[in-house]
Amino acid sequence: MSDMTAQFAEIVGADHLLSGDAVPEDYSHDEELTQSPVQPAYVAKPATAEEVAQLLKAASEHQVPVTARGSGSGLSGAARPQPGGLLISFERMNKVLEVDTTNQVAVVQPGITLNELDAATDAYGLRYMVYPGELSASVGGNVGTNAGGMRAVKYGVSRHNVLGLQAVLPTGQIIRTGGKIAKVSTGYDLTQLIVGSEGTLALATEVIVKLYPRLDHSATVVAPFADFDQVMTAVPAVLAAGLAPYILEYIDNLTMAAIIHTQNLELGIPDRIRDSCAAYLVVGLENRTSDRLDEDVERTGELLAELGAVDAYVLEGGSARRLIEAREKAFWTAKAIGADDIIDTVVPRSAMPKFLSTVRGLASAAGGGVAGCGHAGDGNVHLAILLKDPVARKQLMTDIFALAMELGGAISGEHGLGRAKTPYYLKLEDPAKVALMRRIKESFDPAGILNPGVVFGE
Amino acid sequence: MSDMTAQFAEIVGADHLLSGDAVPEDYSHDEELTQSPVQPAYVAKPATAEEVAQLLKAASEHQVPVTARGSGSGLSGAARPQPGGLLISFERMNKVLEVDTTNQVAVVQPGITLNELDAATDAYGLRYMVYPGELSASVGGNVGTNAGGMRAVKYGVSRHNVLGLQAVLPTGQIIRTGGKIAKVSTGYDLTQLIVGSEGTLALATEVIVKLYPRLDHSATVVAPFADFDQVMTAVPAVLAAGLAPYILEYIDNLTMAAIIHTQNLELGIPDRIRDSCAAYLVVGLENRTSDRLDEDVERTGELLAELGAVDAYVLEGGSARRLIEAREKAFWTAKAIGADDIIDTVVPRSAMPKFLSTVRGLASAAGGGVAGCGHAGDGNVHLAILLKDPVARKQLMTDIFALAMELGGAISGEHGLGRAKTPYYLKLEDPAKVALMRRIKESFDPAGILNPGVVFGE
Repeated sequence: MSDMTAQFAEIVGADHLLSGDAVPEDYSHDEELTQSPVQPAYVAKPATAEEVAQLLKAASEHQVPVTARGSGSGLSGAARPQPGGLLISFERMNKVLEVDTTNQVAVVQPGITLNELDAATDAYGLRYMVYPGELSASVGGNVGTNAGGMRAVKYGVSRHNVLGLQAVLPTGQIIRTGGKIAKVSTGYDLTQLIVGSEGTLALATEVIVKLYPRLDHSATVVAPFADFDQVMTAVPAVLAAGLAPYILEYIDNLTMAAIIHTQNLELGIPDRIRDSCAAYLVVGLENRTSDRLDEDVERTGELLAELGAVDAYVLEGGSARRLIEAREKAFWTAKAIGADDIIDTVVPRSAMPKFLSTVRGLASAAGGGVAGCGHAGDGNVHLAILLKDPVARKQLMTDIFALAMELGGAISGEHGLGRAKTPYYLKLEDPAKVALMRRIKESFDPAGILNPGVVFGE
Repeated sequence: MSDMTAQFAEIVGADHLLSGDAVPEDYSHDEELTQSPVQPAYVAKPATAEEVAQLLKAASEHQVPVTARGSGSGLSGAARPQPGGLLISFERMNKVLEVDTTNQVAVVQPGITLNELDAATDAYGLRYMVYPGELSASVGGNVGTNAGGMRAVKYGVSRHNVLGLQAVLPTGQIIRTGGKIAKVSTGYDLTQLIVGSEGTLALATEVIVKLYPRLDHSATVVAPFADFDQVMTAVPAVLAAGLAPYILEYIDNLTMAAIIHTQNLELGIPDRIRDSCAAYLVVGLENRTSDRLDEDVERTGELLAELGAVDAYVLEGGSARRLIEAREKAFWTAKAIGADDIIDTVVPRSAMPKFLSTVRGLASAAGGGVAGCGHAGDGNVHLAILLKDPVARKQLMTDIFALAMELGGAISGEHGLGRAKTPYYLKLEDPAKVALMRRIKESFDPAGILNPGVVFGE
């Protein structure tokens, strides 16, 4: 047994430390599509913040690179370990510490999954509103990537729903940031700096998340449009009407066909309409009374008709749930149609038509294709990239990201840069900003142990 | 003319640079109550980000401390200049650059006031929802202090409504952060690090703010309670009911009496009820139709009665507006009743009863008193401190802030630390966090020119 193995085992207990060949393959990757797995030298499964602190302190002293892992459902390779590195898996730190109804928050450990948190808050009539596609994702992973998802159009992303942290610095210091409070103007907002930092600054060991009342009544309206640009111009009109949709998604016809086929969904949309339409807008509405919901659904239908929808279908409970679930699992649909890579680029929503038409042109000129869906209300475009040749694909993706940035957007809306998208970022981002972020990184992590290769080069 | 005067005048033009005795007294302070004014050596009024960049570069080279100033309406001394320092006043950078209805954002310069921004967005049916007491405050000041205000209970604070910045680093580099997008997971969130940093990290020269649709129908309900704790327990119940109030304030009886007297307000509340009640809850409701609003008002009245309110009064348009305006100007009421200092401490809303009763006991034991009102939905307690002796007052305030932190809160919810509250912060905050923030500060501002004495010691 190596010295480091013994030292890490001493901290978490021999039962909770794996090393060498005893490390299962699952720990060598997340769900990112293109990168090769990397077996970590050690996997530690701490039970407390103090154990995490000791692990990081030891790793800092011995220059062992450290990667944090929640559920391993990330899509950018941020949880892929480093060769010779330590993977800290939060699977044992998966408890709800408190559901506080007065302050409408939950205090949880990072390893808890979204499904588990949803179950724990249901009895109180409350809900954590961050709702990315994968509900087996962990809250710690949400913190790392600033996860968004479908409800962000109404409830914001992780950043808006994480009020405070207990976090361990790479030096082994344990700090608390924020709290059960939404308003703070007392020093720098360390919570928001750590949220979205993909495990490169500090590791969260407790998360205070905001909860909202569950509204009892909801409905889903699906509207096919003959023309793609009409979908995009409908989006701001729906938002400006004050209907406060909690879901506002578009799905292109290819992706909808794949969803309907793979899920065996019956949406009640006649074939001739499906065949003639370019894309669908999906509007989720909710209200505290069924009368109000019915009114809102009717108003939405009228509005969509005014905005050029071919028709509007109110989905029944079962098919609505299955469509939303299928949309959640768009990644798996992309994988099923043979995607060579996926992106979740964000642009101002006004720029979506131009972005999408230009991207289609770029992909086609490169001999490939794109298909997808996205969070229309947020300008967050999820695309499967279909282009086998890796060199041509890399160029195409560089061009797509450069276009997004030129339009005022960013490379990733919610997946993060991870190891997969960091090279594009370093190529395209303002060097002054990268240098500033690197200095910030050093102020947290002087030994440079936390997730090297993510956000910055190796 | 000194070398520095000549150099700064060269950058902004001689007409826009004041120095020495030519500097009006108004530039020597903000509205903080206790600190002595400090005349800056230079006041520069730049017109562009490039001019700000050149000013900061020159100041960094010559170690001239720099303080930024918007409208000077701050309450913590963050805009009080340094002796021998440069004050950068953003009064000439006060334009709306764009109101973008598709993305529902405005792009503005930092010197614009909230009143001006409100006027500019009104024609589009949109509104910037951050609504601190003082509407002559600037958007740049909102960014600096992470201003909150009354509507935060529904719409969040500046942090949730500032989507992007153009900002100048002390090195003279100009960066852009965020954008017309709500979702980003691409590197560290520099926007949120700069928001609330009180001019110590970088100076904003453009601000992208989120706008919401103006809802056409609103009403204000005022409910007197005989018992203070009942007001506090009513707050989470109102929030859990899904009525989504956009205002949820409490006003104690002393403060209400002062408001009614100084504003000559007629709320229609009989004297015998006013005399017997300890505090009032003010609930602002809004909806997109008048029918829904009426229903919500009725439901709120019933709910407040169930929660122990003595009665509930729906205010007519004029008196509602005047009560809200008076509440906004609570600082001036505090000043009028002879406050020796003011605080805007935040605690979890569940801790408000304990916090307020303990604080009353502490103040009384010290031979003083407290009175106030606050953002009940956010746990943000605004108190006038009435205690003449400065030594005893300092001790009382230290005890109050220590209590707030012990209860899971923070020294300031929205005013910021400024020069006035920083000494308490340095005394009470975890030294590991202060040291980390200091390293972050150095990563932005290696020469240490930006607002020395704020967040950190001189």
